[in-house]
Amino acid sequence: MNEQALAIQDQYDEGFQLCYGCGSQNTSGLQLKSHRQGELVIAEYLPSGDQLGVPGVVYGGLIASLIDCHGIATGAAHFQATEGGLPPRCVTASLHVEYRAPTPMNGQPLRLEASVSDASARKAVVQVRVLSGDQLTAEGQVIAVRMKPQAV
Amino acid sequence: MNEQALAIQDQYDEGFQLCYGCGSQNTSGLQLKSHRQGELVIAEYLPSGDQLGVPGVVYGGLIASLIDCHGIATGAAHFQATEGGLPPRCVTASLHVEYRAPTPMNGQPLRLEASVSDASARKAVVQVRVLSGDQLTAEGQVIAVRMKPQAV
Repeated sequence: MNEQALAIQDQYDEGFQLCYGCGSQNTSGLQLKSHRQGELVIAEYLPSGDQLGVPGVVYGGLIASLIDCHGIATGAAHFQATEGGLPPRCVTASLHVEYRAPTPMNGQPLRLEASVSDASARKAVVQVRVLSGDQLTAEGQVIAVRMKPQAV
Repeated sequence: MNEQALAIQDQYDEGFQLCYGCGSQNTSGLQLKSHRQGELVIAEYLPSGDQLGVPGVVYGGLIASLIDCHGIATGAAHFQATEGGLPPRCVTASLHVEYRAPTPMNGQPLRLEASVSDASARKAVVQVRVLSGDQLTAEGQVIAVRMKPQAV
């Protein structure tokens, strides 16, 4: 189903693969992997048992972290699609999360779905949905800013 | 300087001390400790070297996590102050973070300062500032909701 074998994060410049949330070279981090799938960017993440908030519920800070890195990857994929080349590293200008329902700690992976709702040459506004099975448990918005424009 | 020896989080019911961000019983977590200090609630946190985003910069998801748990503790302290008893466990309805400047990974602890800007019987709106030395690097807003009202 994935249109690209490599995750978006694994196409960042090697110096930018140390992020705690999504860097493949950060061995203690979350190592989130985001992929394009049609009009969406998707990712899955299986919380570990210690990543809880209140008993039975996934930690909200983890959900915010996943939304952050997935939103940034979605912004990077947008700039890649419009400009070509590799996905440029973006940073987070703002992050908003609405927790719609407790995200159950049930041994099932969470699914993240994201798309760009607005963009300029330097910024992308990304909407992110977090699902546990069929249930929407959180919605997020990330404003992703390109670190530096690529030469055209 | 602290008005209470025990952190707010360490006064939560024992069943709620497992949170990845602030539970003293979560040995792999962040173990954030928030204390009242006059009109503010304050906390310090020293990021570890692996908690980075881009090189030299603290991971934005960590900052969001600290704002989340510190905001929730500030809401709990508000309800404690108005009702007496122990701080009730709150959960996060929404979390917003504005990243004002890169938060430097410089071996110095971050300082979090928070206060309640609006509240009802069940919700508290909490404003959080994140400082690295004298520099404001992020601002957050947390809407904290009491899990269940205490009997009066």
